[in-house]
Amino acid sequence: MPYVNIKVTGGAEAPTPAQKAELIRGATELLVRVLNKNPATTVVVIEEIPMDNWGTGGETVTARRKAQSA
Amino acid sequence: MPYVNIKVTGGAEAPTPAQKAELIRGATELLVRVLNKNPATTVVVIEEIPMDNWGTGGETVTARRKAQSA
Amino acid sequence: MPYVNIKVTGGAEAPTPAQKAELIRGATELLVRVLNKNPATTVVVIEEIPMDNWGTGGETVTARRKAQSA
Amino acid sequence: MPYVNIKVTGGAEAPTPAQKAELIRGATELLVRVLNKNPATTVVVIEEIPMDNWGTGGETVTARRKAQSA
Amino acid sequence: MPYVNIKVTGGAEAPTPAQKAELIRGATELLVRVLNKNPATTVVVIEEIPMDNWGTGGETVTARRKAQSA
Amino acid sequence: MPYVNIKVTGGAEAPTPAQKAELIRGATELLVRVLNKNPATTVVVIEEIPMDNWGTGGETVTARRKAQSA
Repeated sequence: MPYVNIKVTGGAEAPTPAQKAELIRGATELLVRVLNKNPATTVVVIEEIPMDNWGTGGETVTARRKAQSA
Repeated sequence: MPYVNIKVTGGAEAPTPAQKAELIRGATELLVRVLNKNPATTVVVIEEIPMDNWGTGGETVTARRKAQSA
Repeated sequence: MPYVNIKVTGGAEAPTPAQKAELIRGATELLVRVLNKNPATTVVVIEEIPMDNWGTGGETVTARRKAQSA
Repeated sequence: MPYVNIKVTGGAEAPTPAQKAELIRGATELLVRVLNKNPATTVVVIEEIPMDNWGTGGETVTARRKAQSA
Repeated sequence: MPYVNIKVTGGAEAPTPAQKAELIRGATELLVRVLNKNPATTVVVIEEIPMDNWGTGGETVTARRKAQSA
Repeated sequence: MPYVNIKVTGGAEAPTPAQKAELIRGATELLVRVLNKNPATTVVVIEEIPMDNWGTGGETVTARRKAQSA
């Protein structure tokens, strides 16, 4: 009965519905394969975080993307 | 000073404001009753997760709801 | 299929096994009563946080408990 | 490689993009200063919670703000 | 730069170090494969939850395991 | 009434009690300074994650530390 929470950047980088379905299938299969967990009770929750709200290196992703494309 | 995080499906299944208030009241009362916690410092955060972003059994809730109503 | 995460202080303030069972029963009943959720797919996870690792008012709970008992 | 998750009330109380950037910079600097962590691998995620979905004292923030301004 | 949090039951059911390494590798590969994310900035955190602290169906896993083996 | 969750590696890399107190003080001051939040209702929770349970680049921190010191 594992619980998996996946946080990714949203907005322009948000996963499509098909990609979300693939993440849920893949994460569930991983828990089944590695730990023999029951897929029926494996919960996966995907959260999409706006690029202004995600930071690494002390900067928002918004700022990093701008710097990369400059 | 407990912290309670409740994640439920949103969208068409999202709780109403009255239901959210009831969840917050109920979760706080539970912590007061069972552990004698101070309600003033008990924090409850409800998060609504789109049905495309929540999976069990390796499938999105969107797909499961369709299969159930088919 | 809700997911409930309850964080409380552990150590000397940790809930007993019976209190944990009561929190799990109570949180599940709350979701059933307010939102008509399926208890079989309602997941509750309790996390016990050491008092050195929990802060409010800018201080650890350890420091607050000392100040209260002084 | 720390991970920092900051949850604040959103809606009318949501931080501006500049405030989010400042939270990300400040949280990263804190981890560098106190624990000598590498800023490049320090992740900060800010989540904005609607005032109907956040509770303390058994009440939603929406209700508390109304009571304060009444 | 995704963040993946995997919660599983610990104690007698805790994953081995090799299984944890496999979960981390698998979750990272999933994000690379489905969303073309950079593995270097993909963070995976595994949390082991005692069986008394995890509930489904309103019961602790401890109680469910006992009922299953009875 | 913000909620801040800080996850860092534990074990040999665990913060000392003084460092935890400094993280709690610093995170609270950050929320006060940037968003004018009330420190009394600002909650900070620090979680220490074993190095086998934390991964980046598809590897556990345990494996990365070994490679660095080899």
